[in-house]
Amino acid sequence: MRAFASDNYAGAHPEVLAAVAEANRDHAVPYGDDPWTTRAHELLREAFEAPQAQPWLVFNGTAANSLALSSLCRSFHAVIVPQSSHLNVDEAGAPERGAGVKLIPVATGDGKLRPEDLPPLLRRVGDQHAVQPRVVSIANATECGTVYSVAETRVLAEAVHGHGMLLHADGARLANAAVAQGASLAELTTHAGVDVVSFGLTKNGALGVEAVVFLRDEVDAGVAWLRKQQAQLASKMRFLAAQVVALMENGLWQRSAAHANAMARELAAGVATVPGVTITQPVDANAVFAVLPRDVADQLRGRFPFYTWDESTGEVRWMCAWDTTPGHVQAFVTALHELTKARISTRT
Amino acid sequence: MRAFASDNYAGAHPEVLAAVAEANRDHAVPYGDDPWTTRAHELLREAFEAPQAQPWLVFNGTAANSLALSSLCRSFHAVIVPQSSHLNVDEAGAPERGAGVKLIPVATGDGKLRPEDLPPLLRRVGDQHAVQPRVVSIANATECGTVYSVAETRVLAEAVHGHGMLLHADGARLANAAVAQGASLAELTTHAGVDVVSFGLTKNGALGVEAVVFLRDEVDAGVAWLRKQQAQLASKMRFLAAQVVALMENGLWQRSAAHANAMARELAAGVATVPGVTITQPVDANAVFAVLPRDVADQLRGRFPFYTWDESTGEVRWMCAWDTTPGHVQAFVTALHELTKARISTRT
Amino acid sequence: MRAFASDNYAGAHPEVLAAVAEANRDHAVPYGDDPWTTRAHELLREAFEAPQAQPWLVFNGTAANSLALSSLCRSFHAVIVPQSSHLNVDEAGAPERGAGVKLIPVATGDGKLRPEDLPPLLRRVGDQHAVQPRVVSIANATECGTVYSVAETRVLAEAVHGHGMLLHADGARLANAAVAQGASLAELTTHAGVDVVSFGLTKNGALGVEAVVFLRDEVDAGVAWLRKQQAQLASKMRFLAAQVVALMENGLWQRSAAHANAMARELAAGVATVPGVTITQPVDANAVFAVLPRDVADQLRGRFPFYTWDESTGEVRWMCAWDTTPGHVQAFVTALHELTKARISTRT
Amino acid sequence: MRAFASDNYAGAHPEVLAAVAEANRDHAVPYGDDPWTTRAHELLREAFEAPQAQPWLVFNGTAANSLALSSLCRSFHAVIVPQSSHLNVDEAGAPERGAGVKLIPVATGDGKLRPEDLPPLLRRVGDQHAVQPRVVSIANATECGTVYSVAETRVLAEAVHGHGMLLHADGARLANAAVAQGASLAELTTHAGVDVVSFGLTKNGALGVEAVVFLRDEVDAGVAWLRKQQAQLASKMRFLAAQVVALMENGLWQRSAAHANAMARELAAGVATVPGVTITQPVDANAVFAVLPRDVADQLRGRFPFYTWDESTGEVRWMCAWDTTPGHVQAFVTALHELTKARISTRT
Repeated sequence: MRAFASDNYAGAHPEVLAAVAEANRDHAVPYGDDPWTTRAHELLREAFEAPQAQPWLVFNGTAANSLALSSLCRSFHAVIVPQSSHLNVDEAGAPERGAGVKLIPVATGDGKLRPEDLPPLLRRVGDQHAVQPRVVSIANATECGTVYSVAETRVLAEAVHGHGMLLHADGARLANAAVAQGASLAELTTHAGVDVVSFGLTKNGALGVEAVVFLRDEVDAGVAWLRKQQAQLASKMRFLAAQVVALMENGLWQRSAAHANAMARELAAGVATVPGVTITQPVDANAVFAVLPRDVADQLRGRFPFYTWDESTGEVRWMCAWDTTPGHVQAFVTALHELTKARISTRT
Repeated sequence: MRAFASDNYAGAHPEVLAAVAEANRDHAVPYGDDPWTTRAHELLREAFEAPQAQPWLVFNGTAANSLALSSLCRSFHAVIVPQSSHLNVDEAGAPERGAGVKLIPVATGDGKLRPEDLPPLLRRVGDQHAVQPRVVSIANATECGTVYSVAETRVLAEAVHGHGMLLHADGARLANAAVAQGASLAELTTHAGVDVVSFGLTKNGALGVEAVVFLRDEVDAGVAWLRKQQAQLASKMRFLAAQVVALMENGLWQRSAAHANAMARELAAGVATVPGVTITQPVDANAVFAVLPRDVADQLRGRFPFYTWDESTGEVRWMCAWDTTPGHVQAFVTALHELTKARISTRT
Repeated sequence: MRAFASDNYAGAHPEVLAAVAEANRDHAVPYGDDPWTTRAHELLREAFEAPQAQPWLVFNGTAANSLALSSLCRSFHAVIVPQSSHLNVDEAGAPERGAGVKLIPVATGDGKLRPEDLPPLLRRVGDQHAVQPRVVSIANATECGTVYSVAETRVLAEAVHGHGMLLHADGARLANAAVAQGASLAELTTHAGVDVVSFGLTKNGALGVEAVVFLRDEVDAGVAWLRKQQAQLASKMRFLAAQVVALMENGLWQRSAAHANAMARELAAGVATVPGVTITQPVDANAVFAVLPRDVADQLRGRFPFYTWDESTGEVRWMCAWDTTPGHVQAFVTALHELTKARISTRT
Repeated sequence: MRAFASDNYAGAHPEVLAAVAEANRDHAVPYGDDPWTTRAHELLREAFEAPQAQPWLVFNGTAANSLALSSLCRSFHAVIVPQSSHLNVDEAGAPERGAGVKLIPVATGDGKLRPEDLPPLLRRVGDQHAVQPRVVSIANATECGTVYSVAETRVLAEAVHGHGMLLHADGARLANAAVAQGASLAELTTHAGVDVVSFGLTKNGALGVEAVVFLRDEVDAGVAWLRKQQAQLASKMRFLAAQVVALMENGLWQRSAAHANAMARELAAGVATVPGVTITQPVDANAVFAVLPRDVADQLRGRFPFYTWDESTGEVRWMCAWDTTPGHVQAFVTALHELTKARISTRT
């Protein structure tokens, strides 16, 4: 099966699997006191150019977000998020129940928050009846496939900090966002004012591992316990860490993301020429959003699984991964062309 | 390094890693709608001889316990546990915070609960000021290395059910408990009256995966959401499932556990002959508890890491794993002999 | 001081205080096993015409809402509410933290939900990644001073039930909503399809007491423990119950609400004739919403405290209570006239 | 009915009720911005001799404890408590669910913690698998009717602080504990090293109000939101505050507690002469614990309700209140004498 449904339909990169196999020798101290974890933490600190950063490996992205927010917030704090964010619509209430915070959703067209979104939400700061906004959480890349530039991130971070809040980045596809603009991970986060990042490696080619990286100098001594309490402390941690090392050590994360992005651009270019297909969001990273006739979409989906993003408009999402090949893209575009042609000829 | 500290110092069994590599091909539907997960669920239902059972794969044991309890309990329910249980002392408050329950700890000598422990804890059933006991949670094997027999489990389950409660088994080492008595997993759980089991595979040779298996016919339709909300839904689920398949399909779980238990018996037999060493718990499964002179313990620990279990008495725990070899055991016993001999000659 | 800021600026009705004094004799069994509580429960069952109803007295409205929702929902459930609802913006996250649910806010113009608001929010029923809507919670009267008619409530309840959900009514001002349309409490709740009501008595003339009333026949045997755990079980319960009895026994609740509503209508009629003042919401119950020149509002506020409702438009809220007198209303209207006249003459 | 079951069977002191009636005039700003609340806070700061103290009024004792602990603790913290404490056995899990902490119960004979109880519970400080003890919570007077002296409190506080923890006092009967030893509230708390106190006024003669008082200079700016979120912010706060003022302004709290204590001593002296009755705890405050023949207890209970404290031994608790009269005590003692005599004559 070849799907354009999500980048988590892809498996693990062979180099990741090889690293896990290589780590599978001898005994190792569990729970992170092993050389692979030490090395993974070093590589993360280097990549984010934050020597004091605290990285914490966890199993998945929902966990990373909950851990980050539970460290930053008390129970009466709120987190400002785009209405369409993964935190708000795809985590089954984990932020509310797991991190114990309230989300304040903001309607957006492209999944991106802007400084001007904030002041109307801050009118009740100091009012004991209202939750107190403490964190702004953005996803980069967003759920809409769009990307915050370094400059956009910096402007937003300055606004967030100016209001006495913190900036969290859900980076399930941070690699894609960075390579999309030729930026380093550090430029797009640490140096742009992000305080904490959930750095996703699973979609980038891991079996399954994410890292919460606290980029500020202030250290929360409690994160170790929060991670354990949230059932995110792996006993055989070396197998998570080895995945991180494989992706971070030789730029594999960049190559994987650059490839996925390139495939999305190729797919976008191919489908753009198909009559009746309209691309609906900038193809900044590895996703293509489009509207097309529903019957064509349904037939195409039978051969290449993908999701309808918006039932009301019929908008669909096509996602490319580290393992998408030009051949898969070509086959997809060809199929779309043929289905469209067949439809037109049927109607005439 | 060769440790007797915990069975999670061991890596993954080569067959498990091979299964993960084998699963790493093509695209697969994420979040459990893949053939590996389907097969893993089948194998678990077969092993527990519970055709209606609902198995749920999660990342680790703390998660399995929290998921199980959060399905069984409301916020005002309590869970009766041995004082020394993992739930009570090694999960950093995950049951209280994650599952939202109160634990009622019971002092035991050997980590095992018995029917007569229950009535004194049930005097306030119906009293609105007191939490209401809903679940009894046992670990089999226990944290003390002891094992509940099938008969003991059945008697306890009958008492638990007689009081209108449910029986949960924390089976981080259920495999060891079963093979220790020549029982099947089903005999020790489903047929003995256990309602829900946290079935541990990580210590048995997996990279990291556990299964919560609801053995009763009544289905809680909400577990899928609880798992997601607790950040335990893997996107690339096939890689968890492949580990389960590898361990369950050809009896690997049994061979691994039988080997670990045999090594523990061999170790116990070896150390029993060392002057000044006293074994303190029955060696039912893969752990040996003992007291020995503290200076000897400290020197031995330098070569073969292990934990002191009880600081007040100096009791230590030596744990064998699926990969412990007779050579490791022999080296350990020899070292202990030599250290003891050296100590005696020094004193004389 | 005479304020039009909120109906909780008013004190307690003398008959309520007399009832509390009357209850202050002899010893009484605490925690609700006293004759006043028995009588209060009877009166509530009668008023809601629900012989099987379970009433639970609590200290305030936030508590009533949290208790109601925590009984109806599991942690992965969601509650659909108007964006402007008290639950969403005035309870400091109590529903999320106390009841453990996620709120799904719906933008409305008049604070009222309608059947057509629901289907777009139900597209992900059955999807394990999304919270599952379980309750629709309306306030009657709303935070906008508007009222759901019996017919509107019934139509909404039918839609809610048709989607497999439950209908909760936040009735902090249910008395005002009922008398506004000449309906009984039962007609506006039990017989209109409401499942659970938070019935507010504090604003109606109590010192401080609210009742959660479960109107359906299905009984949640756990509410007693939820109330205790949420620290809402009064030890000297008779003093809460006596207030309920005073308000419910001889129609005091109706007289209080009818009076407050009448005062609001009188106030609305008075200010409607003032140049530059525009009433912005139907004056259904005991609140008047209006826009007026900001400088006039600021001067008026100095003499009669009230809140600005919407900073962006300058919309204000004037609230009448059981103790508002025609004289107060007249003084207020006169002051507003004079301030407006002075302003016009200053400008010319 | 005259009960010796609990001091919350008593009503409110007439002066308290008069103060509430006096506060019931005019409009007042709700939620605590009223003169009664200002005055209540002043009186509490004076009584505890802590000019920087933050007092927070709440509805009951369970709420006070949850609010205090939720301010002091994060989710992975633990609170060390006597096994028999109200927090542990009488709050239906409110600390675990409401404050989000784990309790570590310590078996005691007399309900009192001592410095030597702490070290064994602190062995895992710094271990990420174990909850981290943060608060020691004592009740003074205890659930066993015993009292910590000023010296005992100071010694314990020094130990608690020496371990880097904080000391919370559940003062549901702090007034009784203070007058029992001729100490001021400040001597028994602020000056003895208590960090936060839940100061109970309900049992002392209020309708229902308790105060959490943070005695240290460090201010937690979040308590206002925690109180609101936990549904403990009264809208008509003046009616809570007026009760506090009545009890604190002219030493009423002292007179009430002294009277209750004196009645308990009188009762103890009276029953001590009855054959077969053994007093089991020091009568430090307003409770008398005793064992007596079960049939006598059952007959006596029919005339003067009281609780069996320990089903296994038949130990009972007799509690005196601010309104217990010498006549009630005499009637009780006489009845006990007669029942005992009748029993003896029946047997012979």
